[in-house]
Amino acid sequence: MIEQLLDERDITFQLYEVLDSEKLLKRPRYSEHNLEAFKATLDTAQKIAKKYFANHNHKGDAEEPEFDGEKVKLIPETLEAWNAFAESGFLAAHHEFELGGMQLPEVILRASMAYFNAANIATTGYPFLSIGAANLIKSFASESLRARFLPPMLEGRFSGTMALTEPNQGSALADIKTKATPQADGTYLIRGQKMYISGGDHELTENIVHMVLAKIEGAPAGVKGISLFIVPKFQVDDDGQKGVRNDVALAGLLHKMGYRNTTSTVLNFGEKKGALGYLVGEPHKGLQYMFQMMNEARIGVALGAAALGYQGYITSLAYARQRPQGRLPSNKNPESKQVNIIDHADVRRMLLAQKSYAEGAFSLCLFASSLFEDQHTAETEEQRNRAAGLLDLLTPVVKSWPSKYCLQANDLAIQVLGGAGYTREYPVEQYYRDNRLNPIHEGTEAIHGLDLLGRKIWLNQMAAYKDFKSEVRASIADAYNGIDTVEMAKCLDRGLQLLDEVTDSLGKQIGGQVDRGLANATVYLDLFGRVVGAWIWLRQAIKATEGLRKPGLTDKDAAFYRGKLQAARYYLTWELPMINPQADLLKQGNSVCFETEDQWF
Amino acid sequence: MIEQLLDERDITFQLYEVLDSEKLLKRPRYSEHNLEAFKATLDTAQKIAKKYFANHNHKGDAEEPEFDGEKVKLIPETLEAWNAFAESGFLAAHHEFELGGMQLPEVILRASMAYFNAANIATTGYPFLSIGAANLIKSFASESLRARFLPPMLEGRFSGTMALTEPNQGSALADIKTKATPQADGTYLIRGQKMYISGGDHELTENIVHMVLAKIEGAPAGVKGISLFIVPKFQVDDDGQKGVRNDVALAGLLHKMGYRNTTSTVLNFGEKKGALGYLVGEPHKGLQYMFQMMNEARIGVALGAAALGYQGYITSLAYARQRPQGRLPSNKNPESKQVNIIDHADVRRMLLAQKSYAEGAFSLCLFASSLFEDQHTAETEEQRNRAAGLLDLLTPVVKSWPSKYCLQANDLAIQVLGGAGYTREYPVEQYYRDNRLNPIHEGTEAIHGLDLLGRKIWLNQMAAYKDFKSEVRASIADAYNGIDTVEMAKCLDRGLQLLDEVTDSLGKQIGGQVDRGLANATVYLDLFGRVVGAWIWLRQAIKATEGLRKPGLTDKDAAFYRGKLQAARYYLTWELPMINPQADLLKQGNSVCFETEDQWF
Repeated sequence: MIEQLLDERDITFQLYEVLDSEKLLKRPRYSEHNLEAFKATLDTAQKIAKKYFANHNHKGDAEEPEFDGEKVKLIPETLEAWNAFAESGFLAAHHEFELGGMQLPEVILRASMAYFNAANIATTGYPFLSIGAANLIKSFASESLRARFLPPMLEGRFSGTMALTEPNQGSALADIKTKATPQADGTYLIRGQKMYISGGDHELTENIVHMVLAKIEGAPAGVKGISLFIVPKFQVDDDGQKGVRNDVALAGLLHKMGYRNTTSTVLNFGEKKGALGYLVGEPHKGLQYMFQMMNEARIGVALGAAALGYQGYITSLAYARQRPQGRLPSNKNPESKQVNIIDHADVRRMLLAQKSYAEGAFSLCLFASSLFEDQHTAETEEQRNRAAGLLDLLTPVVKSWPSKYCLQANDLAIQVLGGAGYTREYPVEQYYRDNRLNPIHEGTEAIHGLDLLGRKIWLNQMAAYKDFKSEVRASIADAYNGIDTVEMAKCLDRGLQLLDEVTDSLGKQIGGQVDRGLANATVYLDLFGRVVGAWIWLRQAIKATEGLRKPGLTDKDAAFYRGKLQAARYYLTWELPMINPQADLLKQGNSVCFETEDQWF
Repeated sequence: MIEQLLDERDITFQLYEVLDSEKLLKRPRYSEHNLEAFKATLDTAQKIAKKYFANHNHKGDAEEPEFDGEKVKLIPETLEAWNAFAESGFLAAHHEFELGGMQLPEVILRASMAYFNAANIATTGYPFLSIGAANLIKSFASESLRARFLPPMLEGRFSGTMALTEPNQGSALADIKTKATPQADGTYLIRGQKMYISGGDHELTENIVHMVLAKIEGAPAGVKGISLFIVPKFQVDDDGQKGVRNDVALAGLLHKMGYRNTTSTVLNFGEKKGALGYLVGEPHKGLQYMFQMMNEARIGVALGAAALGYQGYITSLAYARQRPQGRLPSNKNPESKQVNIIDHADVRRMLLAQKSYAEGAFSLCLFASSLFEDQHTAETEEQRNRAAGLLDLLTPVVKSWPSKYCLQANDLAIQVLGGAGYTREYPVEQYYRDNRLNPIHEGTEAIHGLDLLGRKIWLNQMAAYKDFKSEVRASIADAYNGIDTVEMAKCLDRGLQLLDEVTDSLGKQIGGQVDRGLANATVYLDLFGRVVGAWIWLRQAIKATEGLRKPGLTDKDAAFYRGKLQAARYYLTWELPMINPQADLLKQGNSVCFETEDQWF
């Protein structure tokens, strides 16, 4: 049913023209790899995604998980997909050879994951969360916990979840109530309720490893009292065998608008005598550890949003190319042939906007993955620190910009299909419903706006922010040297200047009165996101002009590069200028929303 | 389950403070009415909407209509709702007393309909379409056809549909293929397929009257060859009794993302020997007649969008007032009490934006209804013509602005609820899915943009456009005289000026090359819509300042008026300025989208 997942040509462009991922082969960790191995990995991902994930994307939506009071029932294709994913090695792909992994670079792993997201974002939720949980155990758990849990997780016998949210605190983790009581043997008894836990129960794996945030009795108030625990669904004996049922019970499933084949659960920990939990790392450092998983998950969420945006774009493009309807305004002859709707200027606008959001978001996610890579494997400590700082700064934008605009892309895909797009007979309405989750989980825009403007900009005397600006300036300088990119360079030059003025002004406002100064942080996040989006497109435009100068250029490649230039032109001239009124509001410190009183609503 | 539908205080404000609907009582048609009668009508609408429509809004979504090959099965509450609506007289409410109607003014009818839309937009689809079909028959059909079909439709024994779209032409009505073959007795045999026909089959009524566009054999090509026919599901004998089954067959149901309890059908006309059809009015004037129904339906669609936006706003406001989570940025004490989320500035922004869209859209729809009223019952011909011209000009905006922005309001309502908003355990995700239809049916933005910029602006030496500007200028002048509205007046003054510059520039561009000049018509529609939205809010702000000066003002009314002022301030300072970058694009004649070639995608 799904004929195309993403665009191979674009993936090659992103990996080897925009990002120069070939240079990774020079790093010791990847010395045994070559480009053919990367390509083979991507081909495998694409093949499995098509065969085992795309096949039930619609069915998993129509026949959502059910809980019969005993067990959660998923459509059987879900288990086949899990097994195919595990057997092809993707659960362990980025881990070391000794762990049974492929030592795959982050960007190759992420590009592979994009295929699975594009095919079926809901079913991909299970491996996605398991990979994150395993990373957390690997990074912070003791050797004995690692030995007990990591191998079955990387083999796919156990899956994983992240259990943060509770019914009464939502995003405010400082206020979680789940308690951990220390036992004589060094383990803990966990008691509390967690909500919106994705993949929190199912029968796909013999065990489920919940990574649970809880407070040890007597811990400090707030985020400084949060610890991280491994709480498995079934206890695990010392020899690694599945033991007795742990005191973790499924209270119920939540029924979502989309993303349906990922169970969303309410879990009761320790209703009876307490759920057995193992402390990960040191007490009270749980949130700090969890942020590793969250930050990875944030790029992952963004990548999922990008993949859905991409599929909507591809689907609506194919539709627009074969659907005849109407004539151009200049043609008044009703007996002339109808044009295909791609010939209508407004349909091209909707396609170009989708292209700019989806391909831009995909490019941004791979860029973030390359920063993650550099943070760990770049040659010098300075390079590693710089990458870490940039990634930390940009994570709020990397999470939010794709989530917001790829949902808008899906909205436009529906609009291109018109009435057909509104029916479940076509796939775009499901992309839209699935994608609506992405601006919510792993932090709403409000949360990321506050994180960016309230904290990240100002860290280390704004070092990361300054690094970001110098990266953007370097691209602008390159673009001024190109023929096709001079006008675009001017646009971003002005945009960056404006961002800087706004940041400066807001710094002063926050210094004055912090609540008022941060009141419009979500607008700042969007403005920042547009500048980043424009930069991401300028980078692509620069590489496209280089591509167009290559000797022996094929017609197909020429069209590809011209498309990139046109989408960049669209983003720089249509989307970026929306920051002007936003900058005015922010510089004024417009307080209309801040000052609105409860009883006025 | 639904505790509040819309806001009675706001309805009173719109009807009697913003619109001065009391003046209608002076018109001969309404001389037997009084304000108590209007209030009683609205109360009845509210009561029936709550009892018979709101009760199954969720159920009608979860258990959508099914076709067993013979009949369409709807949940039984749908029939109870239909009967309650018919029995309370709303199908005939605006018709003359002689027809069994209540001779109700348009604004009172529309405000009543808003309650039904707010309670259950899908079930309201059946009476909504029937009212439109009956209006069409009343206006254009012969006396004998009126006698045959109108009484049972106004009593609710027959329902009605509008059957325009066909599988292969979508919105391009010029290309419809349904054929009408004249018979010796003056009737016609209709053959063809229609698609996306809402309410096209069901068992709610003993008959369904399809208003079908078709081409009489030998008719001119294009829209000039379209005629309108009454094609009933069952033939109607001369004595008005239900006769044999007509040759109209349900080919199948379409399965929508939302709006599910309205059947969306594919209908086959004349598969066997031809469906009996009656010509309405003269041959080849069908589209012209149908435009009456479409233009009424356009206000109706917008009102539905507004009602859904309103319900999302009310729901998310109630949630924000009782959901504790987090603390203000200035409060670093984790042991302090959490605030309710309405205390977070960004939540107030999301509520204020929703208020500005939903109440603005509702106000705009009632304003359009008042123009419809004036078009028919204003005292002088000049007033009637002026109202007709204004309504004709503004219809593209009246249809599009509420549909676009009230969908955005629902998106914000989900965001306020966060994870809860994404689940079907709360109503907001359904509002969002239901509302997604509204930017599609009765003309997409692309179509209305072309209608506005390609045609309506320029009619009669721009007479209606000039009338519009002088209306806006009058409001601006009023606002300059108020204390709280001077800044807002300045904003709209500049906005109107910009609209004028853009219109002027585009006129020249269209004169140069029509396809290129109209390429960005959708952006123009949005810019125009924002100016109209700003004007609608300025009108409310002016009346709110008047309200605040009333002697004996209650605290509750004071808060209501201050809320109106604040929402107006929000719209004028946050939303209107987005027209600046749009105006730049339009004045430049930015052709990035227009020039994008097919192979570049």
